[in-house]
Amino acid sequence: MKHYLTLNDLTSIETAIQEAMALKSDPYKYKYLGAQKTLVMLFFNASLRTRLSTEKAAKHLGMEVIVLNVTDSWQLEFEAGVVMNLESSEHVKEAAQVISQYADILAVRAFPSLKNKEKDQSEWILTSFVKYATVPVVNMESATGHPLQALADAITIEELKTKKTPKVVLSWAPHPKALPHAVANSFIEMMQASDVNFSIVHPQGYDLDPNIVKETPVSYLQDKALESADFVYVKNWSNYQAYGEVTSQDASWMMTKQKLGSAIFMHCLPVRRNVVVEDAVLDSEQSAVIMQSNNRTYAAQLVLKKILENG
Amino acid sequence: MKHYLTLNDLTSIETAIQEAMALKSDPYKYKYLGAQKTLVMLFFNASLRTRLSTEKAAKHLGMEVIVLNVTDSWQLEFEAGVVMNLESSEHVKEAAQVISQYADILAVRAFPSLKNKEKDQSEWILTSFVKYATVPVVNMESATGHPLQALADAITIEELKTKKTPKVVLSWAPHPKALPHAVANSFIEMMQASDVNFSIVHPQGYDLDPNIVKETPVSYLQDKALESADFVYVKNWSNYQAYGEVTSQDASWMMTKQKLGSAIFMHCLPVRRNVVVEDAVLDSEQSAVIMQSNNRTYAAQLVLKKILENG
Amino acid sequence: MKHYLTLNDLTSIETAIQEAMALKSDPYKYKYLGAQKTLVMLFFNASLRTRLSTEKAAKHLGMEVIVLNVTDSWQLEFEAGVVMNLESSEHVKEAAQVISQYADILAVRAFPSLKNKEKDQSEWILTSFVKYATVPVVNMESATGHPLQALADAITIEELKTKKTPKVVLSWAPHPKALPHAVANSFIEMMQASDVNFSIVHPQGYDLDPNIVKETPVSYLQDKALESADFVYVKNWSNYQAYGEVTSQDASWMMTKQKLGSAIFMHCLPVRRNVVVEDAVLDSEQSAVIMQSNNRTYAAQLVLKKILENG
Repeated sequence: MKHYLTLNDLTSIETAIQEAMALKSDPYKYKYLGAQKTLVMLFFNASLRTRLSTEKAAKHLGMEVIVLNVTDSWQLEFEAGVVMNLESSEHVKEAAQVISQYADILAVRAFPSLKNKEKDQSEWILTSFVKYATVPVVNMESATGHPLQALADAITIEELKTKKTPKVVLSWAPHPKALPHAVANSFIEMMQASDVNFSIVHPQGYDLDPNIVKETPVSYLQDKALESADFVYVKNWSNYQAYGEVTSQDASWMMTKQKLGSAIFMHCLPVRRNVVVEDAVLDSEQSAVIMQSNNRTYAAQLVLKKILENG
Repeated sequence: MKHYLTLNDLTSIETAIQEAMALKSDPYKYKYLGAQKTLVMLFFNASLRTRLSTEKAAKHLGMEVIVLNVTDSWQLEFEAGVVMNLESSEHVKEAAQVISQYADILAVRAFPSLKNKEKDQSEWILTSFVKYATVPVVNMESATGHPLQALADAITIEELKTKKTPKVVLSWAPHPKALPHAVANSFIEMMQASDVNFSIVHPQGYDLDPNIVKETPVSYLQDKALESADFVYVKNWSNYQAYGEVTSQDASWMMTKQKLGSAIFMHCLPVRRNVVVEDAVLDSEQSAVIMQSNNRTYAAQLVLKKILENG
Repeated sequence: MKHYLTLNDLTSIETAIQEAMALKSDPYKYKYLGAQKTLVMLFFNASLRTRLSTEKAAKHLGMEVIVLNVTDSWQLEFEAGVVMNLESSEHVKEAAQVISQYADILAVRAFPSLKNKEKDQSEWILTSFVKYATVPVVNMESATGHPLQALADAITIEELKTKKTPKVVLSWAPHPKALPHAVANSFIEMMQASDVNFSIVHPQGYDLDPNIVKETPVSYLQDKALESADFVYVKNWSNYQAYGEVTSQDASWMMTKQKLGSAIFMHCLPVRRNVVVEDAVLDSEQSAVIMQSNNRTYAAQLVLKKILENG
C-alpha cells in the first residue's frame, strides 16, 4: 500500500478484515516491522480515539510516534501562488516536504470547513500533503472520508454478524452542531463493497453526496427502514445541499431501544447521549460502540503494516 | 494493587516507602515489567512535576506512555441521564471504556471546581473513571487528594529524619488564588498513618475537612506550633467552610528562615516565592522541595509497579 | 560538551560538520548511547522543525523524549527576589532544578520579547535554565541565537559547495511581522568561523548587533552584493536599533530567481512565499531549504551525542 486515503487503497477489503482480526489476536506479532521507523501524526483537529488507537497500533509494530497538534505550531498556507503576507507562516509545500524527512509515515487529521463545499470536496488539506509529502500518507479523517473508522466498523460487523448477508441500516440522528459527512461517506462506501443488505434512512433534504450514495436505497421513514435490521449505524451529519447547515434537529429521529428492536447498535463516537441515542441503547448489550473503538487499533495497525511492508 | 486512588490503596505505607527507596537506588531494575503495556495519562489540568515524574516512572518500568491533555480533545459529560445538547460531546461512560482498551493503566488529573463543595467532595471525575474504566486507575491529583505527592513526601521524611519520631507541622500559608485542599488532605492522612508527632496550624476559620483532620491537633498560633519542629510542611489552601474563597491573605503567615528555626522545609511545588515562603528558606540547605519532587518519580514507580504486578 | 548554548560550545566546527555528516549516513550507529537517558524538550514558543528533528535525533541515539509545551503548565518567574503575587506560579529556580531530576539533557526554546532589548540581550530565560539546571542545556533557539540551525546550515553548505571558498551572502528580506535576530546572528557567527567569502546586505538602518557583525562586510545594495554569490541566505529580521520594530517592508528586497542568478538559495523556514522569496526560487532546484531542514536532525544528533559522551 502506498497511501491510505480512501477505502480504494485496500486491494481487498475482505482480506484486510481478516488480517486485522489476526493482528487483534496477536498484536505484537510484527513488533520488529516498524523498528527505526517513525510515524508522525499531524492533528489539525481534536482527537481522542484516533490519537490513542493509531499511536497504539504504531507501537504494536515497534514504530516511534511523534504527535504534533498544528495549534502548537503555526498556520499553514495551502493556496498556490499566494502572497503570504497575512496569517499563514508556512506553506504546505515546505511543511509536507520537511516533515517527510522526519517521518516514515505521515498521518493527517483535517476536518472540513463545512462552509466552502467545493473546497471541502476537493480535500485540499489531505491532497496537499499527498502531493508534497515524500512518504506515505494516512487519512485520520479528512473533509469527506474516515476510512480508518470504516475499516474498524467492517471488522466489528464481521465479528458480530450471525448470518451471511446481514441487513445494515445507516440512520441519520439529530445533533445540535454541524457535523461532517466523512464517517457516513466512508461507512456507505464500505457497506457497498461488503456482502450486506444495506440501506440509508434520513429526513427529507438530508441527502448525502450522490456520487457516494450511488444506487444504495434511501428512504425517509425511519421505522420502516429499521424493520428486521441486524445492524443499525446511527450518525448525524449536517445538510449536504444547504451545505453545513443544521436544518433539522428533529428529536423523533433519536435512536431508541424500541426502534432498535433486536439489532446491534453502532456509532463511531463521540456520541451525545439522549440526543443521538438514548441511554438505554448505549447501556445495553446491543451496543457495539466500545468494540468499534477497540477495532480502531487493529484497523490502523493493518494499514500501517501494509504500508511498512511496501516500504 | 487494583487502583491507586487514596493512601488506603497502599496495604502497608512503611513497606511502600522502603520499596520506593529501593527503586530509587536502582530505577531500571524492573525495566521489563511494563513491556508491551501502555500508561495513558489524562490531564484535565496543567501539570509539570506530575507529568514528567509519572512518565519517567513508567519508562523506568519499560511501559509505553501516551499523554492526552483533555483540552486537545473535547468536553466530557459526567452526569447520568442528561440530554447532551449543550457543550459536552462525549460521556465519561464511553470515554473511560474506550480509553481502557488502549491502556493497561489509566492515570487521571482532575482538580476541584472549588465552587460546588458537594460535587467536589464526591470526586465525581475520578470516581466516574473508576466506575467505567476497565483498567486500573491512578490518581494524579483529584478534587480532594494527591496520594502520589503524599507518598513522595513520606519518602522524603524517611530519608531526612534524624530521630525515630520527628515532630512534623503542617502550616497554612497565604496565596493570592484559591487553591485546592488535595495536597493538605493527603499529607494529613499520610502523617496520621506515620510514626510522627503531627499537628496542623492555620488561621482561625481555615479548618480543613473534619473527616480528614479527625483527632490531629490543630492550633492557630504559628510561632508556638512551630517550636522544636523537625519538619515544616507549608501549603496554602482556600477556605473549606466558605468553600473555595480566599478569606485571608495574611502575609504574617509566610514561612521565614526565622520561624523555621532548624526544621526542614517542605512544599509540594509550585511555590510562590516571598508569598508562601521567603527566598532565604528555599535557597537554604534546609529546603527539601527539590528532593520531594525527585521522590515523585519513585512514588509513581512504586504505584505503577504494584499495579503491574497484580495485573 | 557541557552545554550547547552558542556555536562557541563546539570545540571544532569543522569536526562537528564532519561528524554530523557521518551520523547522517548511519543515523542509528550510536543507538545505545542514549539508552536509559531522557531528553526533556521545553517549548516556550511554537515549533515544527525543531520539535520533530530534535526528537528524531534523540531517538536515533536511543534516548527517551518528553516534550513539554510550557502553555500546558503555568507561567514561570525569572526575576530574583520578586514577591510572586501576580501571574507567575513557579520560579525558574525551582522549575529548572526539578526538571533536571527527570532529565539527562534539557533543551529549551524561548524567543525574545522584541520589546525589551536589554532583557532579550541578557538571554534571561536560557541563562536562568543554565544557572539553575543541574543537567546540560541545549539551545533550541533563544532570544539572540539559534546554533542548531547554524550548524545545519553549515552542514548544508559543506555538502553543496563546489569550490573551496564559496561566496556566501546573507540578505535581508521583507516580512509583515517583527521577527527575532537569532537565526541571522548564529548564521553570521558560523560564517565568520568558516572558510567562506562572507558578506551581509540589508536596507540602511537594519544593522544587526555590531558585537556579532564585527568586521564582516555590510552593504546596502542587494543586486551588487549578490553578484557571483554561490550561496544566498535570505532572512528577515526586525529592526535592531529601533528595537523590534518593522521599519521597512520594502518588497523590492524579496528574493527572486533573477536576483539569485546561479546561487543556491538558503532559508531556515518557515518562509512566507512571495513575500520573503518568490515561488520560482523555492520551487527550483537551486533551493536548499528542504535539505537544510533535514540537516537539523543531524545537527541536533551531533550535539546530543557530544553531550552524552561527556556525561
